[in-house]
Amino acid sequence: MSDHTSAAVQAAQAARRASILLGDSSTEARNKSLLAVARAFETRRDEILEANAQDVANAETLCAKGQLARPLVKRLQLRSKFADVIAGLEAVAKLPDPIGIVQKATELDTGLILTRVACPIGVICTIFESRPDALPQIASLCLKSGNAILLKGGKEAARTNRILADVIAEASIAAGAPAGWIHLLETREDVAGILGLDQYIDLIIPRGGNDLVRYIMDNTKIPVTGHQDGVCHVYIHGDADPDQAIAVAVDSKCQYPAVCNAAETLLIDAAWPADATRRLIGALKDNGVMLKGDERIRALAPEADMAPATDDDWRAEFLDLTLAVRSVDGLDEAVDHINTWGSHHTDTIVTTSDDVAEKFIRRVDSSSVMRNASTRFADGFRYGLGAEVGIATGKIHSRGPVGLEGLTIYKYILRGEGQTVAQYSGPDGRAFTHRPLPVDEG
Amino acid sequence: MSDHTSAAVQAAQAARRASILLGDSSTEARNKSLLAVARAFETRRDEILEANAQDVANAETLCAKGQLARPLVKRLQLRSKFADVIAGLEAVAKLPDPIGIVQKATELDTGLILTRVACPIGVICTIFESRPDALPQIASLCLKSGNAILLKGGKEAARTNRILADVIAEASIAAGAPAGWIHLLETREDVAGILGLDQYIDLIIPRGGNDLVRYIMDNTKIPVTGHQDGVCHVYIHGDADPDQAIAVAVDSKCQYPAVCNAAETLLIDAAWPADATRRLIGALKDNGVMLKGDERIRALAPEADMAPATDDDWRAEFLDLTLAVRSVDGLDEAVDHINTWGSHHTDTIVTTSDDVAEKFIRRVDSSSVMRNASTRFADGFRYGLGAEVGIATGKIHSRGPVGLEGLTIYKYILRGEGQTVAQYSGPDGRAFTHRPLPVDEG
Repeated sequence: MSDHTSAAVQAAQAARRASILLGDSSTEARNKSLLAVARAFETRRDEILEANAQDVANAETLCAKGQLARPLVKRLQLRSKFADVIAGLEAVAKLPDPIGIVQKATELDTGLILTRVACPIGVICTIFESRPDALPQIASLCLKSGNAILLKGGKEAARTNRILADVIAEASIAAGAPAGWIHLLETREDVAGILGLDQYIDLIIPRGGNDLVRYIMDNTKIPVTGHQDGVCHVYIHGDADPDQAIAVAVDSKCQYPAVCNAAETLLIDAAWPADATRRLIGALKDNGVMLKGDERIRALAPEADMAPATDDDWRAEFLDLTLAVRSVDGLDEAVDHINTWGSHHTDTIVTTSDDVAEKFIRRVDSSSVMRNASTRFADGFRYGLGAEVGIATGKIHSRGPVGLEGLTIYKYILRGEGQTVAQYSGPDGRAFTHRPLPVDEG
Repeated sequence: MSDHTSAAVQAAQAARRASILLGDSSTEARNKSLLAVARAFETRRDEILEANAQDVANAETLCAKGQLARPLVKRLQLRSKFADVIAGLEAVAKLPDPIGIVQKATELDTGLILTRVACPIGVICTIFESRPDALPQIASLCLKSGNAILLKGGKEAARTNRILADVIAEASIAAGAPAGWIHLLETREDVAGILGLDQYIDLIIPRGGNDLVRYIMDNTKIPVTGHQDGVCHVYIHGDADPDQAIAVAVDSKCQYPAVCNAAETLLIDAAWPADATRRLIGALKDNGVMLKGDERIRALAPEADMAPATDDDWRAEFLDLTLAVRSVDGLDEAVDHINTWGSHHTDTIVTTSDDVAEKFIRRVDSSSVMRNASTRFADGFRYGLGAEVGIATGKIHSRGPVGLEGLTIYKYILRGEGQTVAQYSGPDGRAFTHRPLPVDEG
């Protein structure tokens, strides 16, 4: 076992032990630790920002040499976000406790009561890229939900991540959180070591680009919550109102094109009036969108001078002002296109027909499906979840924007008075009552 | 691509297409298909039992040659279970529909309504060993919950599985279910081919022994719901009532020792009176239990003549009348033992103290945690779930006995009137109302 593997194993084992204690701590204790971290961030502000300034200076040097992209340097900056980081910690402390909620309660028989109660998942591992404010955000959500956490950030933010993790650990543990609940992993080898530790780690949440997420999903048996791609669609049905169609399509593509919930493909029904199609294409071009069209769309709007679209464009996540456009014959063809080429993230239809909208909603197999609304709404804050762990496109556990609930699972608890299964067996056995009992409000 | 891989891929692709249509079918349509299958089983009873008799005859021949164990031959028999199989189909038709339930509803703003609605997972693959009545059971649960299914049974039951799958497909599709929703895989190569198809298959549910489950978990990136081991514990606290302790321990071990929720290790607190310990050990021996004890227990009850227990015994799933017994010093040591050596399945404490019981319940990291009740209660029927898909010991999606709900996930649905995110951005942007709306009753 190499030193790195050994360090990762030790961190994971310590996290597993701490997770039992953290999961057994009260709401008040976890909130007290969160607020202690917020105070420590205020007290040690200069020290943290100095470490961050060093990371930024190093990144500037690399950028000047052409070894690091300019946007990555910008994302490293913590100073302008520092007040938000502290406000975020305080906000998480104020959220309702996701742990301990009684989801179901059943009397199996007199004096034999079954409940299903929300509990922490256990040990979460999160691997993220350069944005260091992700560290206190995800750590605070884990602390709130009683989960131990292993963190691995990008190497450009190494100094910042180190001090952030140290301050969080020191302040939270001084306030009563169990030692070992948070660990920072600092090397690539640590990550490789972690991916094999399915006996200690319950869930991996990658926050980063497509390549990172794919690498993790391809190299671990540990469950992963996240998304690789956001290939989101806007489908303009034949009966769509032109003003709504233009508003939704332009917003979905242009409001913030660099993110996963921005639209990448526009499907225009062949039954939609040609003049409306030309207006929509004109509006997109006016907003600076570079269009790649299939043959029918290009023939319909030759003045737009679109590049021809290929199959690669239907699966592309452009993340910039590029948009693939295709003409489709009716709802079924649109749904087929989305389910075949999309990434099961977020897709919207513009239509004035309730029947068409509801069929689209039922048949599109995506985490968020919308009618007459921009794909950009698919987000934990806009959905009112209070906090966002990430967006998931899998079909297991969590889907779509994931809030604190995504960091919980449940256990069944049976409280009896010495009952045995033998008493309920055979022709003279007792019968179960299976009487539902009242539970906590959702 | 080999023929087998190609057959598996084609089945998975067809299942994926069918899953969209099945997920969009009404409660009535799915129930109608279930009842049509029940009627077809009645009509084709002789044909099905004849195929099964051939499988049984072949198995008898293998058994006579010593190539197949006697209990496997017995489990192949369908005749004595046939009425139960039909009753099971009818019972599933009567269960509440798990699909379409509105779990959450939020007004984001006037005319912009978000809901979270239960939907099928999509394509389920189930791989099971010789018991052929598992096939109609799991197929009916998938049909009920709108999931397409790929099935692979044991080779000893090949003829039975083939006709069962044919009858289910023919009857359900004639009654309106979409073609392709159910596929039987018939070769080992099909299974190997299936395990790589994470783009088409959403969840694997293995039903079989430890080796099968481990093989699947080790060889796929597709999520797996199930359990490898059932290393369940009974912990007798120092204040336990002797009669309750004896009843719970004997039932947990002896009521049906061959199953996953039977106890495998007994932890007796050193503070429990020595005469009670000796009574309990005597009761277990009277029930035919072979005991393996640690040094302290053997010293305490030398008359029991226990074999010495090793570390291997603490992790053993005996599945027979063998029980490992250990003396522990207090609750914390018992919890540590269970979390270290157990399989996170089902563990019970016998105690008269509420505080001790509740700490045990909070700290034992298992899917079912009990007080003063036999571990044998951990079961979908006894828990009142209506149907059991299996028992899961993972921490993601489902845990413990899994009912129909475990075959569902949700999608977010946003219905608007042309709203854009730009309208909600910037200093003059509209504010979200995030007003909770009433939802379906759980």
